[in-house]
Amino acid sequence: MPAPISVDQGLYTQVQQFYARQVQLLGNGDIDRWSETFTEDAVFEQEAERGRVFAGNAPPQRHGRAVIAAAARGAVRQRQEGNVVRRYWIGMLQVEAATDGSVRTRYRAVLFQTVRGSASAVYLSTTGEDVLIRENGDWRVHHRINSHDNAAGVSTGSEEEESHG
Amino acid sequence: MPAPISVDQGLYTQVQQFYARQVQLLGNGDIDRWSETFTEDAVFEQEAERGRVFAGNAPPQRHGRAVIAAAARGAVRQRQEGNVVRRYWIGMLQVEAATDGSVRTRYRAVLFQTVRGSASAVYLSTTGEDVLIRENGDWRVHHRINSHDNAAGVSTGSEEEESHG
Amino acid sequence: MPAPISVDQGLYTQVQQFYARQVQLLGNGDIDRWSETFTEDAVFEQEAERGRVFAGNAPPQRHGRAVIAAAARGAVRQRQEGNVVRRYWIGMLQVEAATDGSVRTRYRAVLFQTVRGSASAVYLSTTGEDVLIRENGDWRVHHRINSHDNAAGVSTGSEEEESHG
Repeated sequence: MPAPISVDQGLYTQVQQFYARQVQLLGNGDIDRWSETFTEDAVFEQEAERGRVFAGNAPPQRHGRAVIAAAARGAVRQRQEGNVVRRYWIGMLQVEAATDGSVRTRYRAVLFQTVRGSASAVYLSTTGEDVLIRENGDWRVHHRINSHDNAAGVSTGSEEEESHG
Repeated sequence: MPAPISVDQGLYTQVQQFYARQVQLLGNGDIDRWSETFTEDAVFEQEAERGRVFAGNAPPQRHGRAVIAAAARGAVRQRQEGNVVRRYWIGMLQVEAATDGSVRTRYRAVLFQTVRGSASAVYLSTTGEDVLIRENGDWRVHHRINSHDNAAGVSTGSEEEESHG
Repeated sequence: MPAPISVDQGLYTQVQQFYARQVQLLGNGDIDRWSETFTEDAVFEQEAERGRVFAGNAPPQRHGRAVIAAAARGAVRQRQEGNVVRRYWIGMLQVEAATDGSVRTRYRAVLFQTVRGSASAVYLSTTGEDVLIRENGDWRVHHRINSHDNAAGVSTGSEEEESHG
């Protein structure tokens, strides 16, 4: 996404609102509604940082809303058992309108974790690249690539869902 | 705030600008001007996370701009004595226009703390829910509920003001 | 920037997009394109917090895109050697349009650092004040003052470039 061209401000704030809602749903553990922010046939990829050796197994690729939702439900259950609150922030959002009506985004994401009764801290820092398409009057994620700043985080099965935001 | 409907982009950026200014005033310790971002009769509530047992005393409820300002001045004094800088970030902003002209918002907030001469760190992670109303050409907080991710943080008197942002 | 007046929403989102792109370029280590987000004659100042005693040497002032770029390249090299990923977030953005066509901004910035194979953490918290001017169809930084919350951070030569975002 090299071009320094600003997209239409209406589209930009729409996409900001889309992500705000999406990550709040995930933080709240409302996976039913969160999963509807993905298309039925969405693909969710976890990737190590480009240009660096990937430390673990092949990065996971989840196909379809049902599979994506199941992984997120597992992560929410883990959080609840661990008495952990996780808040996803998406920021530094770049938005590009494609000619086919879809929207490409690229953003940083940070996950703040609070263990009940102790301090809050940064848990993960990632970069996301999405293809959004319009369905039923709102945006949905059709394809997401999520790259951890810390590749080691990608290789541990139980934590990878935590970057879904 | 379940509906996936985007509000008018003009309103959305107005509210973003309102919060940017409000939290910068608080971070700067400018409580005179910060308190004017609340209505004269504003109510500020601190709440433990919904659905979880509250670890300490009853959550405080402050009534009126003067009381809210006094609490914030105490917190600013504490910071200065402790040689501490605190920066409030509001993000993941959801905005909903009510039919009565008020605006409902729901957002995450993070407080970054820097002790002079040592490292910066996340200090608190919270969720805010505001009712904003329009007065004198700008938005003001009429009602705020602030919920700490770490309920324990709510029960310690001296720290609660620090999430006013 | 005391006035509670919201700027035009189109300008506000333009500036948001400008900073999103600028900090992503820096995080990606793409200093060629990052440096083009500054004017040829840009000035970049590092400042201790206003009203506090400055702990180290005189704050650096870099004049011109070439000098600014060279400092950033040094910082990127250091990061790569240290196996460190740094992500710059700009937020709490206040934008004011000046009568001469330039734009004044004031914002908080946070730098998240991830050492490969270990945890992510907050590295720095700063406040930025920019003068942006329009060149070649996009905004560019003409003047930046960057103030660290932790003044000690300013006095260590090798780290100061890391707050360029």
